[in-house]
Formats: sequence, C-alpha cells, structure tokens
Amino acid sequence: MEKMFTIDKPLELECKKTLYPPIYIAYETYGKLNTNKTNAILVCHALTGSACAYSDNTDKKGFWDTLIGPNKALDTNKYFIICSNVLGSCYGSSGPSSTNPKTNKPYALDFPFVTIKDMVEAQKLLIEHLGIEKLLCAIGGSMGGMQVLQWARNYPYMVKSVVAIATTYRHNAVQIAFNEVARQAVINDPEWNNGNYYSKSLPKYGLAVARMVGHITYLSKDSMQKKFGRNLVSDKVEFNFSVNFQVESYLRYKGEQFTQRFDANSFLYLTKAIDYFDLQQGYPTLEDAISCAKDVKFLIVSFSSDWLYPKEQSKRLVNALESIGANVSYRNINYEYGHDSFLLESAEQNFIIGNFLRFV
Amino acid sequence: MEKMFTIDKPLELECKKTLYPPIYIAYETYGKLNTNKTNAILVCHALTGSACAYSDNTDKKGFWDTLIGPNKALDTNKYFIICSNVLGSCYGSSGPSSTNPKTNKPYALDFPFVTIKDMVEAQKLLIEHLGIEKLLCAIGGSMGGMQVLQWARNYPYMVKSVVAIATTYRHNAVQIAFNEVARQAVINDPEWNNGNYYSKSLPKYGLAVARMVGHITYLSKDSMQKKFGRNLVSDKVEFNFSVNFQVESYLRYKGEQFTQRFDANSFLYLTKAIDYFDLQQGYPTLEDAISCAKDVKFLIVSFSSDWLYPKEQSKRLVNALESIGANVSYRNINYEYGHDSFLLESAEQNFIIGNFLRFV
Repeated sequence: MEKMFTIDKPLELECKKTLYPPIYIAYETYGKLNTNKTNAILVCHALTGSACAYSDNTDKKGFWDTLIGPNKALDTNKYFIICSNVLGSCYGSSGPSSTNPKTNKPYALDFPFVTIKDMVEAQKLLIEHLGIEKLLCAIGGSMGGMQVLQWARNYPYMVKSVVAIATTYRHNAVQIAFNEVARQAVINDPEWNNGNYYSKSLPKYGLAVARMVGHITYLSKDSMQKKFGRNLVSDKVEFNFSVNFQVESYLRYKGEQFTQRFDANSFLYLTKAIDYFDLQQGYPTLEDAISCAKDVKFLIVSFSSDWLYPKEQSKRLVNALESIGANVSYRNINYEYGHDSFLLESAEQNFIIGNFLRFV
Repeated sequence: MEKMFTIDKPLELECKKTLYPPIYIAYETYGKLNTNKTNAILVCHALTGSACAYSDNTDKKGFWDTLIGPNKALDTNKYFIICSNVLGSCYGSSGPSSTNPKTNKPYALDFPFVTIKDMVEAQKLLIEHLGIEKLLCAIGGSMGGMQVLQWARNYPYMVKSVVAIATTYRHNAVQIAFNEVARQAVINDPEWNNGNYYSKSLPKYGLAVARMVGHITYLSKDSMQKKFGRNLVSDKVEFNFSVNFQVESYLRYKGEQFTQRFDANSFLYLTKAIDYFDLQQGYPTLEDAISCAKDVKFLIVSFSSDWLYPKEQSKRLVNALESIGANVSYRNINYEYGHDSFLLESAEQNFIIGNFLRFV
C-alpha cells in the first residue's frame, strides 16, 4: 500500500536552489522491520518507475515482482523492503507536475532541477524517519543503480551493501545523445509550451517519440530481430505511412501507452538528472571518488546483451572498487533481452542477488 | 555541372501506381565517355545525398570528393562517372516537393511511393539515354549500396561490376525501428500537416529530431565518446534545458542544419524505400534471389565501427554471392568513424576500390 512521507523542512538541492515544504515522498514497504532494524533493504527504481516495486497480493503490478516476494531474492519473509518514488517523478513524490505551495498551481519548470544526489537525500530522510540507522542493502537497476552508487559514495556508513544492476557510474556521449534526442522530441512539441501544459493538451506526440527512442535502446538487437524481424502487420507490403512492419506497431504502441502514464516534464527532469550524474564528479579519478566506500560490500551486475549500459562500464566500476580494497562481486549475466533484462530476468538474477544478500 | 534528364513516358512503379511525365532526373557527369562506351561508372548516393558526387573544380562540395578525381579510385582521367539524384529526393529529381503536372502544385503525399527498384529503373533510363549498354561499375554506400545490389539483381547484364559499401541486402528490425522513430518525429510535428506544408511553415522541429536520431547511428560509439565525452559547452554544469553538453550542441546543430537543406516528405519517402528494400523479396533464399548475378564481379566493403550496418550483414551477402559462384571480394575496413566512414575514409577505401576497378 502506498504511503506518504512529508519532508517539512526546506531541501537544499545540488543546483543551489531550495525546494520548500511540504515535499512529498511516496513510498511502499513490504515485509517487517525487525526489532534491531537491521533487515531493511532500499529498492531504487529506474527512470519511469514508481514506489510500487512489488504487487504484494494486490491487483497492481510491481516493477520487480520477479525479485521481490516470499522466498525470492528480496525475501519479504526475511527483509523489510522499502521503495520510494524519486524526487522529480510523477508518481506521488514532489515533481514538476505537483502543486507549487507558493502558487497553488503545478510547478512546471519552476520545479528546481534535481540530481541523483538530491533523490538520495530525500531517501535518506525517509530512512531516518523510519528509524533505520543503516540499510542492509540499497539495490537498483539503471537509474536505480546510479542512486545506490550515490548512497555508497555519500553515506557509506548507512549502507552495509549495495547492488547496482545494468547501470553506469556516469553517462558517456552516446548515452547523453539518446537522452538529448528524446528530450528534444518533447521540447520541440508545440504542446509542451515551455512546460506549461497542465491545464491544456499534453505534449503527447513528442513524448511518444521520446519513448520510442528509449525502447530501441532497451531491447537487444537480437531480441528485437527475433521478436519482429521484417514481419508485416498485414499479409503484404502496403505502401503508406501507417504501420507496415510489426516493429513499427510495437514502437508506436509503446510510445502512445507511455503518454498516458508519464508526465513530460518529469521525463525531462529525470533524464537530465541521469545525464548530470557523475560518480567521479569533483575527483581526479573514480577511485578517489569512491575510496570512502571501501567498507561497503558491492555486487555489480551487467547483462551480456545490454548495449545501453554495456558491461565495459560495469567492469570499469568493478576495477575501481577492487583497487580501493572494497569487497566487490561482479556478474555479467548471459541474457538476451538487452537493457530490459534487469526487469525480466528471474532465475539467475534471483540466485545471484539472493546469495549475495545471505552473506552481507 | 548539373544536367537534367527528362523521362517523357509514364513510369510504372513497384507500388502499382504510375508516375506521369515529365519526370525529372538531375544528374552530373565527370570525366569522358570513351568511344566504345565501356568506361562508365554509376555512383549511387545515400539517403540525403544529391547528384553532386564530386566538386569538379567548382565551389560546391561533392559528397565523394574523397574517392572521385584525377588519380583517385574513381579516376576522372580514366572513367566516365555518372551520378543522378534518386527519384523521390529533393535535389532536382522528381519527388514529393516537385510540381505535380496535373495540379501545378507540389505533389506532397500525392507523389507515389518509390522503391529502390524504382530508383534503379530511372537510372537505367538515364544510362540508356547516354547511350551506354553496360556499366563498368555501379558503386554506392548505404542507400547507394542498396541501389547497386538492385542493379545486380535486376540488370546483371548491364553491370560488369558492383561495389556495395556500408550497406545491407535488407533492413532488420532495429534498422527499421530507427527509421520509424525518425519518421514519427516528422509525422507528429503538427506543421507536417499530412504533408501539405509547402506554402506554409515547415515541420522543421520534427525533421530536426529525425536527423538527430540519424546522427547517433552514423557515428561510432568510440568516435562520439572521443569527440565529445562529457565535455560541457561552458566551464561548469548549468542546470537548464538549453545546451549543457557538447554532444547536445552537436546534435542540435546537425538537426537544425538539416532542416535548411532537406524536404521532410522526401525524408519520409526515402526512409520508407530503404525499409521496404529486400533483395531477397519473392525468393525463398538470398542465394536464389541473386543467382542471376553470378557473372557480375562484386566488391563488398564494411567498416569495423559501423553499428548501423554491421559487418555481419555484409558477410551474409558475401556468403550468398560466393555460394552462387560469383567473383566476390570482401573487405572490412578497420576505421573508427562508424557508418559515416564510407564518406570520410580515404586512403584504404581508395586503394581497395581503385585496385578492384583496375581488374574489372
């Protein structure tokens, strides 16, 4: 069941602006916190995720139902699982679509820029509010992986372990490029209207194109080819600009579907947060930046077919963690579904993460 | 100097529609046709190219100045080089932005769909008009490579040799997906107005996003990272939606620049032609489809860093050509600039193509 945590003091953000209370953080918990409060696991979600990580015997669908539940890696019989919606999102936590208490209108672009570090600051306040001094683990994939790495860097004494999946310690030029094209699709939609669309028609065409760009990068080339190939939607080639190939139909459907569930401004803010994220920021080397986390236990997971966050980036991180003397395990799971694998894969990912947690 | 060839009879197209005369084909020639008319080379351009393949001592820039000229692979002292703008484009040949003789207005979406085969049909009429019975070679990269493969399949007796560079015998799902996202960016721009924008404002925002998608796929990941990395346009991170990273600046510039030189409808028609292209169409195997071309001499070239048209597709084609008993050479050039390499690389490409032509 979704709960709401309200931050009732101003939050100083990395962009040097202040977010004023009330600041809302939507969250869910599964399982029970033990009396010593030593069994808490924070789950951090990806770009378009929400606090709903687990269906928990309800009708809703959790984004990590594959990993969370009784006898799964994130065993709800053993652990107290917390998942909160990130700052800047549109699923209950404060973001650009939330009401600005100063104006009683949606913030839109008056919402200050938030970074991965700011998301972690809000999560830390939630963890403290729940009376937890140290997390057993912070775990996340993709943008969620960035958050858990930020936890290790900024609050190493509050995380016994960290599991970062299908992610990177910072975006390279290609990763920024894909996000920028997606953002330009939204920004170039006249309905976006400099972010002021909440009482008008939404910039759904731009947002749909943005999501289509994303979906190409989420699947592996092989799985896309296997799933769609050159298959047509009808029995012969039609010469027109409507849907001819099944892959076109898939992308358009995914794009259109996304516009019904996600806020365009949140999409812009969160992709920017991802691009700004640089674990090494302010330090000459990655090793220097994370040397403070040498007592945290790490599990880094990549997927063989993930070309959005290729394993080389994970390996670079693993090397840095090894060289600072941290206890780090690394697994590259041989799985064919590209970046999306972290949300899909079940058996091997469950086994690896479950095993890791048993010995934290 | 640009010349114009006018087709003065109706052209029956693969889409079963008819394109009525006058049909214009803009073309250029370089070098001299010998008396036996045996030294003619047809150059086929890529998606956004024109008939201008070579600068020819003029101020203009030819898209293949690296390959064409005295003592270069396409030696203008030895060969008679022909390059024509494809049907459906916007650089002089008939396309959606041309005047429809029936209405005296731009065709817009009344322009019939053209395929790679239709482009080749128009080129064949031009070649015949020039009095050439058999080309010494048909050469092209990317979409140009598709045209030369189509030449080999449909008119093998008219091409002594074929050089297909950085291309494929048909698009796979990922290649269609990138084109479809680009098309949706255009189509979703309200200024596109179902193709009727010629007397109004152009769908430049959609077209710019479309081109940005393309540019990501044209560069290699390594070259993009080496060129831009996480470099900023100013001395520190600015928190806003304008340009922060240099790679963003590059993409926006390329997108904006493209809108000033290319017609949005042509972009839609030509990307469709590319997606529809399937050398194997109507045959159970690729080998069956091209068995007619066993007497054509082939050179297939791929680039190591080209992830838009990866070498596996070229190798599949080479295997098919080998198994039908054709004389085929294959070279995978180790060059770092991704798909764009075929327009940039000079020394090795020149050497390989020059050598190939010497023994045709």
